[in-house]
Amino acid sequence: MEKTTTLSKIAEELLVASNIAILIHIQPDGDAIGSSLALMLMLRRMGKNVKVFCQDPVPGSLKFLPNWEEISTPQTSNNKDYIAIALDVSDEGRLGSCFDILKNAKKSMQMDHHATNSFFADINLVDSSVAATGMLVFRLAKELGANIDKDIATYLYTAISGDTGNFCFPSVTDETFDQMAQLMRAGLDIAANAQQLHLLKSLGNIRMIGSALTSLKIKAGGRLSAMCLLKEDFLNNNAKLEEADGIVNLGLYIHGVEAAYLATETKDGIKFNLRCLKPYDVSSVAEQFGGGGHMLAAGCTIENSMDKALESMDTAMEAMLKA
Amino acid sequence: MEKTTTLSKIAEELLVASNIAILIHIQPDGDAIGSSLALMLMLRRMGKNVKVFCQDPVPGSLKFLPNWEEISTPQTSNNKDYIAIALDVSDEGRLGSCFDILKNAKKSMQMDHHATNSFFADINLVDSSVAATGMLVFRLAKELGANIDKDIATYLYTAISGDTGNFCFPSVTDETFDQMAQLMRAGLDIAANAQQLHLLKSLGNIRMIGSALTSLKIKAGGRLSAMCLLKEDFLNNNAKLEEADGIVNLGLYIHGVEAAYLATETKDGIKFNLRCLKPYDVSSVAEQFGGGGHMLAAGCTIENSMDKALESMDTAMEAMLKA
Repeated sequence: MEKTTTLSKIAEELLVASNIAILIHIQPDGDAIGSSLALMLMLRRMGKNVKVFCQDPVPGSLKFLPNWEEISTPQTSNNKDYIAIALDVSDEGRLGSCFDILKNAKKSMQMDHHATNSFFADINLVDSSVAATGMLVFRLAKELGANIDKDIATYLYTAISGDTGNFCFPSVTDETFDQMAQLMRAGLDIAANAQQLHLLKSLGNIRMIGSALTSLKIKAGGRLSAMCLLKEDFLNNNAKLEEADGIVNLGLYIHGVEAAYLATETKDGIKFNLRCLKPYDVSSVAEQFGGGGHMLAAGCTIENSMDKALESMDTAMEAMLKA
Repeated sequence: MEKTTTLSKIAEELLVASNIAILIHIQPDGDAIGSSLALMLMLRRMGKNVKVFCQDPVPGSLKFLPNWEEISTPQTSNNKDYIAIALDVSDEGRLGSCFDILKNAKKSMQMDHHATNSFFADINLVDSSVAATGMLVFRLAKELGANIDKDIATYLYTAISGDTGNFCFPSVTDETFDQMAQLMRAGLDIAANAQQLHLLKSLGNIRMIGSALTSLKIKAGGRLSAMCLLKEDFLNNNAKLEEADGIVNLGLYIHGVEAAYLATETKDGIKFNLRCLKPYDVSSVAEQFGGGGHMLAAGCTIENSMDKALESMDTAMEAMLKA
């Protein structure tokens, strides 16, 4: 195992390979899908036999991308005449059922930008200074001498815009925008793609936002916002559980609010999405209830009635804000 | 009157002037405020006496910008020893009470990016190919040899990000991102500013979003979305009329929807915000009710009860979708 490598080493291995499996993480996002389709297209144009694998299906919101159907679930195979490259995968566990493909490859490689990467491949290129794995694929395109055309620009924009919250995260750098300028010159239709990625919502999602905001309560003297979604909200709005994803952020970004939660009634109990601003730490709150996560975004489930669960969470969050 | 001029001509006039009045449009937005504060700072550093005037106050959402208090309302004065430069002002009417300052100046200039500009100044630089007037101020900074530091980067980011819907509009070009890369190198704290500009909302606004979405009805076989806000919603949510601004867009960006309206109960009747996707034209609908606007965004007021007004609007919007 090599702890760090160079783009030219990755390019060299890809240039001599004939059969290449690109692997991405479970519950794939715009960075994983955009990065993998961009690399697939570049390598196919060089005459390579390339397949992209993912344990989970492409989310509906990303099915506007050309060639999304090319991403397939892993199949059992005895063929070992291929190299595997994982993109945007921080550790083996995130490969899910793609792990066997990595394990059985002649050689395994990876490119990733997560600081927590476990260096699980034979050759590892990990750079946590970039906002998205798509930015590493962009650099690799230059190394491979690959042409960035409109399709590849669409993929890389999806990766970069997806992993930067549309250029709102601290991970954005001058290189992010230098790359974006080049994607525009390659013919990117940014308005059409931004509409798909950032503006369009499903009816179920928009109705769930309405339900959540109607339940909004401001507590702790304006510093805590609380929202809840009941089973009947999902039923009445004809919405799936994942259509409530991201709603908790609406509660956080209110003037004066420093911490927010969304409580969702599920079959396993009351699921909490927790958010806070610096210098607070919601992961410590989540851990009190057997959950976990990051400092500014965490989650847990409380097996109790909605009322009792909200009471417990209010107490814990208010204690965090007072500490 | 000179119909088009060059950046160097504008720079030349500014460089020889001692007293400069910068004028921006009524109901100022991020582009007007960001552009004017950026130019003010550059010129002051060259020893110029510079003031920025606007008929209307700086909106609360932009009061995070350094020096926003420098923007003042026009005062009567007999001093005529100054030149005036209007920024982001498409025509005289948009100057509001700043018109007198322009009229009394030794010389008047303007820089703007609206295709509908009326060329109202002595010297006019109008370039509708740029997404924001801030992009012209960026170009002018280079011409003036002005240093772009962190404060100026914050102003120009506010202008560019504000007038491109955070890089989602068709007006975005490779130059937009080339400039953004340079603003990052100048020390722009994009995450902090993006939070202020795009994420943070007032409690009144977020509650009005909840009320509007709760009223959401899908009509015309999924192609039309309709929302309404009553006087009591504003009362119950302790919200001001302007806290409903922009909510209509949430109705438009739903899968399958091609046109949307928001009906707001006001003292003058039912105010309608209308939106549609290409190839439809809501300005023609607005005109039927004595209103107006653009193809994809228009407005009108119907003096009738909410029920009757909604009925009229449904009929007109459905006819548009069938045409």
